[in-house]
Amino acid sequence: MFEVREGERRLDFDPALSAKDAGLVFIGRVASPWTRREDCPKNMAAARSLGAPAAIEIDAPYRPGLDGLERFSHVAILTWLDAAPRDLIVQKPRHAETARGTFALRSPVRPNPIGLHIARLLGVNVASGRLEIEGIDVIDGTPVVDVKPYFASTDAIADAVGGKDQR
Amino acid sequence: MFEVREGERRLDFDPALSAKDAGLVFIGRVASPWTRREDCPKNMAAARSLGAPAAIEIDAPYRPGLDGLERFSHVAILTWLDAAPRDLIVQKPRHAETARGTFALRSPVRPNPIGLHIARLLGVNVASGRLEIEGIDVIDGTPVVDVKPYFASTDAIADAVGGKDQR
Repeated sequence: MFEVREGERRLDFDPALSAKDAGLVFIGRVASPWTRREDCPKNMAAARSLGAPAAIEIDAPYRPGLDGLERFSHVAILTWLDAAPRDLIVQKPRHAETARGTFALRSPVRPNPIGLHIARLLGVNVASGRLEIEGIDVIDGTPVVDVKPYFASTDAIADAVGGKDQR
Repeated sequence: MFEVREGERRLDFDPALSAKDAGLVFIGRVASPWTRREDCPKNMAAARSLGAPAAIEIDAPYRPGLDGLERFSHVAILTWLDAAPRDLIVQKPRHAETARGTFALRSPVRPNPIGLHIARLLGVNVASGRLEIEGIDVIDGTPVVDVKPYFASTDAIADAVGGKDQR
């Protein structure tokens, strides 16, 4: 069972059991060098600095959707972090001194465990469905639910501030 | 019925009917000035420039999850764009000359219609569940599935290039 740490707070229902508002299809999987959670870099900045490339493997029916993505230097990848509990609304990351709201953290533990990863695109192969990326901070086999082109004009806020820790 | 334009391509199944891989809970709604799709700004850059603030209203059970978010200047909001068809894998936006893959567009039409919006945070009220933001590019009442703190270190790629159009 998942241990509740000091200051943590649970929902009185489990979104994993009541998640009927909308349904997702997995469109592919992450192929990453990380097979154990403890080896996995803690965020995308750490993943990039490791020099360990990764890939996104898109399932056959969805591959035509990659056409044109090669024009972009970066993508936003949305993953489904399915190993995480979904009912913790205030949580205390191991490194943190106090508990914090789930929506103030990038922890995979959240009502809808969708991961957001901004990655440099190294290659796109529409036929094989393979996107080569600079690195990623999730374990091998993690389901993918969306890929979007990254636009500096809307997505890059270089002077954004706040927080030091991401998990 | 949804019209198929030249060069567009459909999946031979509808993800809206087969979306059983994972389930989402709606954690709140967007409160925006836009009630008709045609009035809605086309992307977040346009939304910001309009000087029309908006809000995210988080449902009561999830409000403790906002604690600590006030330390951040920007957030990543994930919405569920539920009015969009999900089975178009190559599409021709009205402004575009040729059809393109869905994953090379920010169109709401995609297998999993999750919207990604980076917004400046103007205020956080944990008790009422209200996040005031600078603006947003979706219509009033759009369901929200996640809110994350935005980190310049992982999310801001100021020199990202590629593409001019977002829909």
